[in-house]
Amino acid sequence: MPNKYVIIGGVACGPKVAARLRRLDLDAEITIIEKGEILSYGGCGMPYYISGEVHNLQELWSTPVGVPRDVQFFKKVKNIEIMDRTLAQKINRAEKKVEVVRLETGEVREIPYDKLVLAVGGTPVDPPIPGKNLNNVYKLNHPYDAEGIKKAAGVGKIKSAVIVGGGLIGLEVAESLTKLGIKVTIVEMMDRVLPKMLDIEIASLLMRDMRANGVNILVNNKVLSFEGDDRGNLQAVVTEQGTIEAQLALVSIGVRPNSKLAQEAGLEITENGAIKVNEYLQTSDPDIFAGGDCIDNYHLILKRRVYAPLGDLANIHGRIIANNIAGSPEEFPGILGTTICKVFDFNAGSIGLTEERARELGYEVVTVLAPGSDKAHFYPTAKNIFIKLVGSKKDGKIIGAQIVGPGDVAKRLNMLSLGMYYGITAKEMAKMDLAYAPPFAPAMDNLITAANIMQNKMDGIAKSISLQEVKEKLNKKEDFILLDVRSPQEVEEMSLPYENVMYIPLGMLRQKTDLLPRDKEIIIFCKVSLRGYEAQRILEEKGFTNVKFMDGGIVSWPFELKTRG
Amino acid sequence: MPNKYVIIGGVACGPKVAARLRRLDLDAEITIIEKGEILSYGGCGMPYYISGEVHNLQELWSTPVGVPRDVQFFKKVKNIEIMDRTLAQKINRAEKKVEVVRLETGEVREIPYDKLVLAVGGTPVDPPIPGKNLNNVYKLNHPYDAEGIKKAAGVGKIKSAVIVGGGLIGLEVAESLTKLGIKVTIVEMMDRVLPKMLDIEIASLLMRDMRANGVNILVNNKVLSFEGDDRGNLQAVVTEQGTIEAQLALVSIGVRPNSKLAQEAGLEITENGAIKVNEYLQTSDPDIFAGGDCIDNYHLILKRRVYAPLGDLANIHGRIIANNIAGSPEEFPGILGTTICKVFDFNAGSIGLTEERARELGYEVVTVLAPGSDKAHFYPTAKNIFIKLVGSKKDGKIIGAQIVGPGDVAKRLNMLSLGMYYGITAKEMAKMDLAYAPPFAPAMDNLITAANIMQNKMDGIAKSISLQEVKEKLNKKEDFILLDVRSPQEVEEMSLPYENVMYIPLGMLRQKTDLLPRDKEIIIFCKVSLRGYEAQRILEEKGFTNVKFMDGGIVSWPFELKTRG
Repeated sequence: MPNKYVIIGGVACGPKVAARLRRLDLDAEITIIEKGEILSYGGCGMPYYISGEVHNLQELWSTPVGVPRDVQFFKKVKNIEIMDRTLAQKINRAEKKVEVVRLETGEVREIPYDKLVLAVGGTPVDPPIPGKNLNNVYKLNHPYDAEGIKKAAGVGKIKSAVIVGGGLIGLEVAESLTKLGIKVTIVEMMDRVLPKMLDIEIASLLMRDMRANGVNILVNNKVLSFEGDDRGNLQAVVTEQGTIEAQLALVSIGVRPNSKLAQEAGLEITENGAIKVNEYLQTSDPDIFAGGDCIDNYHLILKRRVYAPLGDLANIHGRIIANNIAGSPEEFPGILGTTICKVFDFNAGSIGLTEERARELGYEVVTVLAPGSDKAHFYPTAKNIFIKLVGSKKDGKIIGAQIVGPGDVAKRLNMLSLGMYYGITAKEMAKMDLAYAPPFAPAMDNLITAANIMQNKMDGIAKSISLQEVKEKLNKKEDFILLDVRSPQEVEEMSLPYENVMYIPLGMLRQKTDLLPRDKEIIIFCKVSLRGYEAQRILEEKGFTNVKFMDGGIVSWPFELKTRG
Repeated sequence: MPNKYVIIGGVACGPKVAARLRRLDLDAEITIIEKGEILSYGGCGMPYYISGEVHNLQELWSTPVGVPRDVQFFKKVKNIEIMDRTLAQKINRAEKKVEVVRLETGEVREIPYDKLVLAVGGTPVDPPIPGKNLNNVYKLNHPYDAEGIKKAAGVGKIKSAVIVGGGLIGLEVAESLTKLGIKVTIVEMMDRVLPKMLDIEIASLLMRDMRANGVNILVNNKVLSFEGDDRGNLQAVVTEQGTIEAQLALVSIGVRPNSKLAQEAGLEITENGAIKVNEYLQTSDPDIFAGGDCIDNYHLILKRRVYAPLGDLANIHGRIIANNIAGSPEEFPGILGTTICKVFDFNAGSIGLTEERARELGYEVVTVLAPGSDKAHFYPTAKNIFIKLVGSKKDGKIIGAQIVGPGDVAKRLNMLSLGMYYGITAKEMAKMDLAYAPPFAPAMDNLITAANIMQNKMDGIAKSISLQEVKEKLNKKEDFILLDVRSPQEVEEMSLPYENVMYIPLGMLRQKTDLLPRDKEIIIFCKVSLRGYEAQRILEEKGFTNVKFMDGGIVSWPFELKTRG
């Protein structure tokens, strides 16, 4: 008797399980139950369909050579049975059957299984905002949603749009709609976009760039209602900070795991509301596995389970589930919370813990903010990136990082992912044998520089203060010197508009220390902070004792700036 | 008494030691002895000055904000004494003094040291080719060489150039000169360019692209002499394969460590001819350290020392030497041989062992050639990369990789660098939590896919044959079937011009297995090899026993191709 494998869910994890099972168990009967009619689509590509960068929606569910992954494809190429437009409504674990209903006909059937896989995904959070059912109030969960938004935006009647939620999808769609000529306002409840990924100063750099690209961002704000005209079309979004005219809205405030079916079948559910699985991605019923957006993941740094609905994880889950069903047992070790998005010309990524989160958890934290060119600075296509590292002072390990900027963010994030998996310290990171040539990186990669600064701080050689702390001192009108050690040309381009700023270019500092008071705190800065660090050491050499540099330099300063012209 | 630190060598490692020492030891007297007059230049940037991408040679020794790192800079900013145009000609270890001669005056002095650092670099190999002293026969070792090549090329009299040696510098300069409108011929003694970095099939992909960009590559060839006119200007290069007219030549067949000074001082020298150092980068004299291109490095996979003159390592050495002199002891663990270069629109990188090298060393090797899109395939800027992984069958570890193609090579190389440092296996690599969004990577990163294929091969599920092996079978006219499972449209675009090719698109294969002989070896291919692998499993499901797929697919096939139009 061939094995009967039944998989509920036809996107990402489910098809991956099925394809891998087919290759491991050549005789098995493999069935995917999918409530919709589009299979195996790349949901993360939807913002690029809205923007027009992806021309044809079907590309999202086609193979790299352009063959649509439809029912016929799965049948012919993979020998996998697809029951599409079919809802799995009940799991009978005692008899090992799934009760399904064919949505077009209402016909109910029972499908027997030897092993069952739940790849039932997640659902966008649906907040109880009055007016949420008006026309042109969207979520973005399915290619049809993308189609709807694209059509609405294409008619030419949408002048402005509101995006509720400054998360990954919200930001990506903000770019898509802006590219279509629509004025976009993001309404975010927290004090910043991507609040789980980025600390405030890093989010501020991203927000500055988004605003420069025309996006209106309202933080610490909440949507109260959607208002429509007499035809039921959205006209305005009422927020705590006022009413915004808008003909289109996208609600994207998060996703929740689809765990109802599992729960009703008596399977255990986690505190995140996800289907509970062990390290083999096996639910509390050993014949039922689960993966993708309906489960949560063990976070290797947090050391507890977190909900992280991401397409790449769903694929990894899929393969591991198939191995555990039909191959050799395989564990999923867990995640690091690696996340990235592109927003206009900025890339923004995060891994591990933010500083905020690390402090909440009681870590004694050392942080670094290292801006720099992502390639040799003389190479023409070099662009900036800002790396913030979060380290644990106790053991020198890197426990988190945030990287933003127009330059190559993804490379450094992935390096951290590999390193943090093995518990890398700043000291180890600084000695890695990386791929260097001017078109790819500076001779000392940005991550090596950042790791060195972190080690210098841990060793007490480098003494720094964060941008926020400097700003607070300014706000409190504390008596200290802000020493700008840049060249006069640089100062002319851009400077800090505060009365306590003094200017001594680094090359003059050794001769001019007499100008500086010895009884005041001196906070030094330059463009990025390297000269600031050097100046700290020079002043210490000259006997100054209360000296530090401002982490990240003026290029990272997210507050007031005086610029030329 | 302040410590006296003397550093011989003012480029890369030397200035790094000095700058770090200054920050660690605020009172020290730090002196750099440099025989030339240009300090701390980015030698790897020279090809981009020749091409015109870097406009001003001085950018190579300026800080990111444009300040030249000259004697004044080191004095004022770093409080480091530079003795330029000064040759260190003898080390008196007993008295701890360096004898130097000022090159302009001939004046000889002795400089006392507490600790001495040798950062004396390497020298291009100078083969005894007749005519090598003709005008316009260059090496590329110093900014003046770049200046000379650029000037010569700019006069308009150079129509064609010969580059002796298909190594990193040779390839980069081939691009630079081609961009200036010069016809370039590379003469390489081995059967391929970058022979230490790339196996033949990977080098072939790179050579195909370089030839498409107009570069003539002559492999298995040797330069016999340079021929000049009566003014001593180069006119032609005589090779074993004939005479090439050329008005400019670059000899770049490798670099050797400068170890003469050390050797004469009685310091130990390694079998690579480099200054011998221990894990603290300390020579056989505990008061003398050495780093950069004059030492060799412990290779973590080879488990022996190799010569790897690279700018990024020189910087890492510099910091570690300074830490060992004035900070806390620090070891340099070693290298993985990570190397990368850009040649036209191709990036080519390597890490660890090539297949060739691994087999020489007796490894039981599993290799993978995985071509694929470097981003989600529907994302408009996606480009191809070809990943070759070399794995050790014994323990499943990745021991080498080569990655080439127009797409993002550097990211995957650096991921491997971090992973291989920790001894990563294919199985572990396939479960990494990477930064995924369509503008950055496919949902399953190319490296995860490659690692999965490797694991499938190790587990005996995937059965493959290399492109070379298929080509050999064709050459020997062996009796086997080459089964192309691509779509008719793809076949029309490009196909293999051999008589034993059969065509059955993957989607038809299950129904058409009767067409295939059961008594012959069947070698399947598609575009990249994924459908080929799938077809292998389908035929096995149907009872075929002698079936494999061609690793890398037709897109990697470096031999004859039939293309449309």
